Amino acid sequence: MGKLKAFITMSIDGYVAGPGQSEENPLGVGGEHLHDWLIPLKAFNEAHGREGGEVTASSPVVEAWFENVGAEIMGRNMFGGGPGPWGDDPWTGWWGDDPPYHNPVFVLTHHEREPLEMEGGTTFYFVTEGIESAVGQAREAAGDRDISIAGGAQAIQQYLAAGLIDELEISISPLLLGGGERLLDNLGDAEIGLEQAGVVEGVGVTHISYGVVKD
Amino acid sequence: MGKLKAFITMSIDGYVAGPGQSEENPLGVGGEHLHDWLIPLKAFNEAHGREGGEVTASSPVVEAWFENVGAEIMGRNMFGGGPGPWGDDPWTGWWGDDPPYHNPVFVLTHHEREPLEMEGGTTFYFVTEGIESAVGQAREAAGDRDISIAGGAQAIQQYLAAGLIDELEISISPLLLGGGERLLDNLGDAEIGLEQAGVVEGVGVTHISYGVVKD
Repeated sequence: MGKLKAFITMSIDGYVAGPGQSEENPLGVGGEHLHDWLIPLKAFNEAHGREGGEVTASSPVVEAWFENVGAEIMGRNMFGGGPGPWGDDPWTGWWGDDPPYHNPVFVLTHHEREPLEMEGGTTFYFVTEGIESAVGQAREAAGDRDISIAGGAQAIQQYLAAGLIDELEISISPLLLGGGERLLDNLGDAEIGLEQAGVVEGVGVTHISYGVVKD
Repeated sequence: MGKLKAFITMSIDGYVAGPGQSEENPLGVGGEHLHDWLIPLKAFNEAHGREGGEVTASSPVVEAWFENVGAEIMGRNMFGGGPGPWGDDPWTGWWGDDPPYHNPVFVLTHHEREPLEMEGGTTFYFVTEGIESAVGQAREAAGDRDISIAGGAQAIQQYLAAGLIDELEISISPLLLGGGERLLDNLGDAEIGLEQAGVVEGVGVTHISYGVVKD
């Protein structure tokens, strides 16, 4: 059975988005700098169908995000289109006609919607039955391959609190955002044990991977 | 002129102490595990006048804490003895007769007190005129050598917000404390730029050193 993994960039003060998130500014004030280390990379460009870019110590880290992944899970906020029902002309994601997932993507939502097939192998499935249903459907789609939680913070928090994540990789950006959306928050009384599994020093970023200890 | 440096251990969710701090439990619930990586080290034992211990990738990091340091600054909470006036039988610190500093230590407090000379070269000076006065006195004592902020979080926050820290090293422990005292909080509207200066992968800890960008 494949693993459930999450990869995310966090500021050193704990945020995955700055204050004042909005549709025009989904990462909040200053939050776009979280990914300053990522955007120039060749591995990132290639995932988005573009050529060129840099190769750094972070390149193998980013390449590993896409290796052996058979399905993705995503929160509604990350998929976007505002809260509430989908409406008559529904939002189709931030990523254009050919999203960088190339896999089935299971979107956690309270609002039913038919599957949305995009180009390049990405189909968005909208799951209203909760996080365990989403991971079950993702496992079926992924077969022996892994499942990646694409984000955002709330989806990662819910899966972490439920003890369902196997590997959590946090890329720590040297930013002080001072407010916004925290990653490791809202975990309730869950006792979650982490083991440091590996560290990579990038240029302006530190990647730490953690295994989640299972009882 | 020497640098003003701070070295501290933080959980991956941002805390330097867990919830429920008290005199009996100064690091709060679970907070004692923050230093699981540190306590077994030979470099740590030697600083406390003890022999033996482990040598790991973290050893040079800990040895560097004590190199070229000519004075220390410490918050009142870290020195201990509870809040308020010192009383007739005043608290002399957590560290016994021979504290591990072996230098002048400037304690930030609202309550005047005569200097307290301990064994081994440590003298505690109690500074009531604020953080800039303390760093001025520490510079005079340290000469060309560096000044180390021994802690705690509030002292580091005040010096960081005032733009006075040159180097900040955060040792990230793979713990989720879920509450307690946050390190990178209460920084107000200060715009603080950090540059990642170095990363060391330890056993159960990641050391990241940051330079603070000066305008």
